[in-house]
Amino acid sequence: MNEAALRLLLDQIAAGNLGPAAALERLRHLPFEDLGFARVDHHRQLRQGAAEVILGQGKTPAEVAAIAAAAAVHAPNLLVTRADPAMFDAVAAALPDAVWHPRPRAITLERAPRTRGRGTVMVVAAGTSDLPVAEEAALTADLLGGPVDTLYDCGVAGIQRLLAELERLRAARVIIVAAGMEGALPSVVGGLVAAPVIALPTSVGYGASFGGLAALLGMLNSCASNVSVVNIDNGFGAGFVAASINRL
Amino acid sequence: MNEAALRLLLDQIAAGNLGPAAALERLRHLPFEDLGFARVDHHRQLRQGAAEVILGQGKTPAEVAAIAAAAAVHAPNLLVTRADPAMFDAVAAALPDAVWHPRPRAITLERAPRTRGRGTVMVVAAGTSDLPVAEEAALTADLLGGPVDTLYDCGVAGIQRLLAELERLRAARVIIVAAGMEGALPSVVGGLVAAPVIALPTSVGYGASFGGLAALLGMLNSCASNVSVVNIDNGFGAGFVAASINRL
Amino acid sequence: MNEAALRLLLDQIAAGNLGPAAALERLRHLPFEDLGFARVDHHRQLRQGAAEVILGQGKTPAEVAAIAAAAAVHAPNLLVTRADPAMFDAVAAALPDAVWHPRPRAITLERAPRTRGRGTVMVVAAGTSDLPVAEEAALTADLLGGPVDTLYDCGVAGIQRLLAELERLRAARVIIVAAGMEGALPSVVGGLVAAPVIALPTSVGYGASFGGLAALLGMLNSCASNVSVVNIDNGFGAGFVAASINRL
Amino acid sequence: MNEAALRLLLDQIAAGNLGPAAALERLRHLPFEDLGFARVDHHRQLRQGAAEVILGQGKTPAEVAAIAAAAAVHAPNLLVTRADPAMFDAVAAALPDAVWHPRPRAITLERAPRTRGRGTVMVVAAGTSDLPVAEEAALTADLLGGPVDTLYDCGVAGIQRLLAELERLRAARVIIVAAGMEGALPSVVGGLVAAPVIALPTSVGYGASFGGLAALLGMLNSCASNVSVVNIDNGFGAGFVAASINRL
Amino acid sequence: MNEAALRLLLDQIAAGNLGPAAALERLRHLPFEDLGFARVDHHRQLRQGAAEVILGQGKTPAEVAAIAAAAAVHAPNLLVTRADPAMFDAVAAALPDAVWHPRPRAITLERAPRTRGRGTVMVVAAGTSDLPVAEEAALTADLLGGPVDTLYDCGVAGIQRLLAELERLRAARVIIVAAGMEGALPSVVGGLVAAPVIALPTSVGYGASFGGLAALLGMLNSCASNVSVVNIDNGFGAGFVAASINRL
Amino acid sequence: MNEAALRLLLDQIAAGNLGPAAALERLRHLPFEDLGFARVDHHRQLRQGAAEVILGQGKTPAEVAAIAAAAAVHAPNLLVTRADPAMFDAVAAALPDAVWHPRPRAITLERAPRTRGRGTVMVVAAGTSDLPVAEEAALTADLLGGPVDTLYDCGVAGIQRLLAELERLRAARVIIVAAGMEGALPSVVGGLVAAPVIALPTSVGYGASFGGLAALLGMLNSCASNVSVVNIDNGFGAGFVAASINRL
Amino acid sequence: MNEAALRLLLDQIAAGNLGPAAALERLRHLPFEDLGFARVDHHRQLRQGAAEVILGQGKTPAEVAAIAAAAAVHAPNLLVTRADPAMFDAVAAALPDAVWHPRPRAITLERAPRTRGRGTVMVVAAGTSDLPVAEEAALTADLLGGPVDTLYDCGVAGIQRLLAELERLRAARVIIVAAGMEGALPSVVGGLVAAPVIALPTSVGYGASFGGLAALLGMLNSCASNVSVVNIDNGFGAGFVAASINRL
Amino acid sequence: MNEAALRLLLDQIAAGNLGPAAALERLRHLPFEDLGFARVDHHRQLRQGAAEVILGQGKTPAEVAAIAAAAAVHAPNLLVTRADPAMFDAVAAALPDAVWHPRPRAITLERAPRTRGRGTVMVVAAGTSDLPVAEEAALTADLLGGPVDTLYDCGVAGIQRLLAELERLRAARVIIVAAGMEGALPSVVGGLVAAPVIALPTSVGYGASFGGLAALLGMLNSCASNVSVVNIDNGFGAGFVAASINRL
Repeated sequence: MNEAALRLLLDQIAAGNLGPAAALERLRHLPFEDLGFARVDHHRQLRQGAAEVILGQGKTPAEVAAIAAAAAVHAPNLLVTRADPAMFDAVAAALPDAVWHPRPRAITLERAPRTRGRGTVMVVAAGTSDLPVAEEAALTADLLGGPVDTLYDCGVAGIQRLLAELERLRAARVIIVAAGMEGALPSVVGGLVAAPVIALPTSVGYGASFGGLAALLGMLNSCASNVSVVNIDNGFGAGFVAASINRL
Repeated sequence: MNEAALRLLLDQIAAGNLGPAAALERLRHLPFEDLGFARVDHHRQLRQGAAEVILGQGKTPAEVAAIAAAAAVHAPNLLVTRADPAMFDAVAAALPDAVWHPRPRAITLERAPRTRGRGTVMVVAAGTSDLPVAEEAALTADLLGGPVDTLYDCGVAGIQRLLAELERLRAARVIIVAAGMEGALPSVVGGLVAAPVIALPTSVGYGASFGGLAALLGMLNSCASNVSVVNIDNGFGAGFVAASINRL
Repeated sequence: MNEAALRLLLDQIAAGNLGPAAALERLRHLPFEDLGFARVDHHRQLRQGAAEVILGQGKTPAEVAAIAAAAAVHAPNLLVTRADPAMFDAVAAALPDAVWHPRPRAITLERAPRTRGRGTVMVVAAGTSDLPVAEEAALTADLLGGPVDTLYDCGVAGIQRLLAELERLRAARVIIVAAGMEGALPSVVGGLVAAPVIALPTSVGYGASFGGLAALLGMLNSCASNVSVVNIDNGFGAGFVAASINRL
Repeated sequence: MNEAALRLLLDQIAAGNLGPAAALERLRHLPFEDLGFARVDHHRQLRQGAAEVILGQGKTPAEVAAIAAAAAVHAPNLLVTRADPAMFDAVAAALPDAVWHPRPRAITLERAPRTRGRGTVMVVAAGTSDLPVAEEAALTADLLGGPVDTLYDCGVAGIQRLLAELERLRAARVIIVAAGMEGALPSVVGGLVAAPVIALPTSVGYGASFGGLAALLGMLNSCASNVSVVNIDNGFGAGFVAASINRL
Repeated sequence: MNEAALRLLLDQIAAGNLGPAAALERLRHLPFEDLGFARVDHHRQLRQGAAEVILGQGKTPAEVAAIAAAAAVHAPNLLVTRADPAMFDAVAAALPDAVWHPRPRAITLERAPRTRGRGTVMVVAAGTSDLPVAEEAALTADLLGGPVDTLYDCGVAGIQRLLAELERLRAARVIIVAAGMEGALPSVVGGLVAAPVIALPTSVGYGASFGGLAALLGMLNSCASNVSVVNIDNGFGAGFVAASINRL
Repeated sequence: MNEAALRLLLDQIAAGNLGPAAALERLRHLPFEDLGFARVDHHRQLRQGAAEVILGQGKTPAEVAAIAAAAAVHAPNLLVTRADPAMFDAVAAALPDAVWHPRPRAITLERAPRTRGRGTVMVVAAGTSDLPVAEEAALTADLLGGPVDTLYDCGVAGIQRLLAELERLRAARVIIVAAGMEGALPSVVGGLVAAPVIALPTSVGYGASFGGLAALLGMLNSCASNVSVVNIDNGFGAGFVAASINRL
Repeated sequence: MNEAALRLLLDQIAAGNLGPAAALERLRHLPFEDLGFARVDHHRQLRQGAAEVILGQGKTPAEVAAIAAAAAVHAPNLLVTRADPAMFDAVAAALPDAVWHPRPRAITLERAPRTRGRGTVMVVAAGTSDLPVAEEAALTADLLGGPVDTLYDCGVAGIQRLLAELERLRAARVIIVAAGMEGALPSVVGGLVAAPVIALPTSVGYGASFGGLAALLGMLNSCASNVSVVNIDNGFGAGFVAASINRL
Repeated sequence: MNEAALRLLLDQIAAGNLGPAAALERLRHLPFEDLGFARVDHHRQLRQGAAEVILGQGKTPAEVAAIAAAAAVHAPNLLVTRADPAMFDAVAAALPDAVWHPRPRAITLERAPRTRGRGTVMVVAAGTSDLPVAEEAALTADLLGGPVDTLYDCGVAGIQRLLAELERLRAARVIIVAAGMEGALPSVVGGLVAAPVIALPTSVGYGASFGGLAALLGMLNSCASNVSVVNIDNGFGAGFVAASINRL
């Protein structure tokens, strides 16, 4: 439509109905979106996999349901993160084929196949308390650029559990490592593989963990060079970045 | 040699000179490195590009030169980061073809072609004060998985400078965005592209920038989903991660 | 009354009933308020628009209602900020024409026209979660020095949404920009306009947003020069400052 | 020139030398700057007063001099902030009429009259140690939107010094208040006037002042509603914001 | 009793029943309390006024009641701080003449006159939200070393309210100043009087007040020299210190 | 079984069914656990006392009960830390001889005698609010390397209470000192004894205790040289370290 | 003079040369200082002892000397704090009887006897590194309200050194306790005496002392109730407060 | 002598020259040190090994030399920590057999054999930059309770280096683990051994290591249960604690 509007304007010039000076003036004031910017998002969606993402936190169930229903008209696949059961009930009333994922607290709608990347995204988690965040990462990565393999409960204090799975670790194209407390696991994993490692600090811990700050700082100071970091408990972000790499 | 030792042990079993029980006991106590671990590093080096990396900071010029000379026997390419002119003088005395890069404060030795990735690594920098860190990232990425394209001096307060280069931004396979002060640039870039973005906070600023903390926190809280973050002023790490992605 | 007391004292001097030395002594000990200071507030109220402001937080509904009723005797317009429904019920029992604003959680009483400034106050908000704070700013500014225009849901990760509204942005005399997470939006807006920009950090976010600290630090370090900042979630303050500028 | 390029393109359409479809394609890829964005900066400069601003910190004297010389071709007035005597020597070699301001550590070039606002910008400073920052604010404001009045050495522990100047305070259109240590002065000033107050925290202090953090936090939590805040020691920013308000 | 034990030992020496060497050995191992230390507390109690103080927070109602009942045997006056209604119910069941103070959330038992100091303790509070903490200070000071005068709701943004009460302020022997938010009031009061000022930061505020940290830092950095500080919300401590000064 | 697999492989070599080269290749890919690593944990358990430890926090009652029941098959003694009554109910349904310890909020199962060390572990606590954490330390130490002696309610503000127990303090082989607020007690105790002191900061306090940070920092900066520190409220860790020392 | 001006005005009224209404108007606009405020400082100086205090830090030697010379005209005694030898040279050139105190880095001029309080101010210091700050406190207190007694090198890790001086401690009317590192000494002292204790944190320490923050937090959280705190390294403030108490 | 004084007093009682009541009074006022406290230090020294420790930092070379010379009269062995070459020169002038240790920046005097513990203290260091701190720990532990074994340059990013030395690690009675940056090594080591592990964070790193804070927090949050922590860069403390354990 915007393109149509611009074409109309150009047609008018070509037809002599609009002088160059007047056209210049109009063009200068056209909203940028009208010049094709809206397609940016369209392009991005195509490349990033056919899933619209909605952040549930801070919205009412009714708002989430309304946005999801509107998005579902165009996007075959949906992901609602940081959701709760009430949000799911509202969404399911509008979209009965929506699915509730209790541990990562996410809602999905899948009407098209999940996007696949070129390799496997490995999700490693240090402890069982890290699983909600790790599974948000796994679900996100699998929707947008999987498949995903997982390796749970292999914290650094029992390093042999990790070493026993070296082959699977090295088979991954990109690795997400979720850990709370001291957040040391990404450094150990990073030293064992050549793939890019996305460190995912969790708020698991107490006292001087300061809500995940200790893990976050540890990961930012990793002595392994192939490690980059996302926000505390940001499983979605870690999964998104991993998928964007795996789709390359 | 380790492999030889292990083969000798196995030969002894095959020859009947060593019983399985005794062999079992010996194997259990063999240092892991002897079981092939040393090759892990070898493998990684091959995949990550033929460059040995030495952190200059905290070492004396003599130490840096000694390590560099030893490494140059095996590794055709070397990178010394966080170096200073005195370190370069010491290195150049031993390795006359070493090169000093003043802005990123790095030393390189290049006796083999630089490693190439599948696409281009774009390095974006917000201001001229961010250039030392950005160029450390660019040099690292180019050595280990280039080529590299750069886009400097396009901070968010003059957003049109960035928008004018949208095509080049979108042509990159992975993007590093260096910024100090409020660290907002990675979010803007992340919203314009589908490629993974590595946010590189710098310590540029004063007052409440708290040595780069403001930029770091800003980047960790990016509302763009394709952004992951490295430590403040860690140009080397950003370049390393970008190269590891571009080599995929 | 105070003025009357002072006049009485001066009359006594004029009438010869009080010697200058005794008058000097009395004047020195007169409370300052008696010298006309109380009118300071009166003057300020006139210039700042006819609205008395009550901070609801930390008061009981009964206390809020009592203060509001007392204030309404003199002030035609009232604003109660950080209120809750119970406070509104108590106020409405005393002042039936009070109005409840659910999103900004504010109560207003409007018996005189709202104060108008010389231009328009634009309120920009990055995301829908920022709306409660942004609307507190908008309501405050509109009461004390509007009119107000709003531009919501245009965060930096989708910069084209902002660019599409450049004309409206540039038409404003003063702009409030509310954002949580990385708080980058004020820098981008500041770079696009010449008007003063009031950055309003919100506590929207999680993990390393540290309750809005990341956004606050980002805004304080803005590379746009025309930006000043208020406290986290201080929509009232931002609106008040904007109104004080727009009334100039 | 950009405008010329666009006009040429439109002329080509009008002349029938370029079809609308091809024109559409070209327009879509034109750098945004070519569509008039460059004038944004031009417009801003005109409205903000004819002064180009260069941040000296983090640049070499030669770089500062080169940028200043290039800017002086177009901009009659220049301001170099956070400069040092070596920078001034380099600038003065190229621009002999440049002036060194030792206390605010700034360089100016003034070939056109300073920009005037509609009222007076008052700069208040708590102590003599705050003067370098306060004078940077005063110089900036005076160049870009003065005139400026100043009121120094009137910290809150001697409140009568401030009260004695109430008339001058109330005569200002916008007020900058610089203070270190506990940073209480903006609250007191804010309570005495109706004008917008820009709080400027300085790093003056020791121990638990934490480099100005105490003053910054105090100002952000001001109980005076007409106060907004800039970064620690950001005299330039405070002056710039004040000028942008005074020019309204 | 301990004294008796020591006297017995000395009697045994005097009587020749215990040799000096054996006595030396026994004395070396006597618990210190047996040497008279227990009287330290007794002495202190006498000098500090006849009130036993119990911290309610972190104890069960039954525990508080048991401790209070035991203390009341010896101490005519009791103060339970950081209490709640359930604690009061339990205490009142055992001590029917106990009194509940709802705003400072304290329980008192007064069977002897309150301790009086040599002058008056003035308690100043910035806003109504600071009253619970301020009244805990006032109640404590009045029990242990009053009398107490109070001056509430005179924050720095309306400085004339404070100045109007200068005579009362200057009449006090020691002054407690409670304030939240920017915590500027102690500096202003400290500048107006010669008496020692005890700054009492409260957790009143939001956002960058960080639970009273902003007020605490402000007070520690006070430019008034006669100011010392207690912990956030530590009304009891401020009152205790003031009483200890007023009793001098 | 793993050992069996390895023995089989070695037997094959010995039998000539597998050549050394092929064996070498297989050995290199054997998961490390298969080389005997799993016995690490077994060994450690034997040396550290026959108690399996389960962290209750972050698990559901059903999960805790399932893990406890599985562990109880092999481990005669169990300790569940940071538990709650619902967890105990679930555990007791599966293991009726489990015991609930309300103050330290722990569950134990004791079917074998507790492990004894060579000396006594002393647990000192500053105040009654520190008891839940101190008793978690005492219970842990007693299970894994007791016996334990305790000395409660002897904070530094009444130093004579501590001095009176000097003999008992000096009789201990290792001492845990739990304290909140200013956390000064470990320094005082450390100065009185030669034994290693484990400082255990608690979150007891308010305001500027910042959830135990003040106590933690105090202990880390202890001027007594024989002090090391564990995390805030980490009674389990303190008890575990003390037991590991006492078993030496 | 101001008083003269006011008297003139009153005389004019008395003489009938100025009507009450006009006088009212003039009085309202008289600067407050003219109403006698300047004498506030005069009064305070008299009560606080005849010493003018100049903060050297942040001033040039010439500035310090000029201020000192001007002050010496009226004030018989001077104290320059945070000075350096160059400042002393400049001051001594103007005031040859000035004295340099190297450890507390202070300059004094004493032409009148030091002010005496009613009792003794005791200054306790934990270690020898705390002496510069402790001696600044001692010198200040002795000038403004001494005499001063001192007790140095008695940190909490050797508590017997403190206990051995209990009599001297208890003889003091007010006690300053300077300590770095964990800052535990004020709590111990506070528990041993009934006098008010002023805790003076120093920046002595390293690592997690964070420039005195650990000591500061420890002192703010003191479990001794008679403790209040001043800023890190603020020996002057501690001495000033102690003197103000001792003069009561 | 003190003991002699006490014996004299007892003798006087025994001789009837002093009545019990008078003796009681005298005893109560005897300084504690006179009752045997001085021997506490003597006892401790005997048990902790015959080495007096002097903290060089914050003292002048002359002061260090004077203290060392005085201590050397009684103590055969001395350790001066945080020293510098100038201090060594001064000490060596007085004690020619003193030895300078450049990497740990320590001075020793050894006239008696070093104290030996029951096992070996292992000192592990992550990187070469951690060696100054690690060697201070090793030297301290070896003087006060060695022998010491060391394992350097085995950070977590190359975990195989650590695993290759498992036997040596497990042979130690107590282990010190020094690491900067993310500080993950103590967790890994703690998981591999049953011995107590003393985590020693170093300030090695940059950016978000915040001077060792990241390593410190990581170690405090270790998921290995046998880990306790000392202050950043406190090699002396780690060595002291390890020696106190190894001497048990």
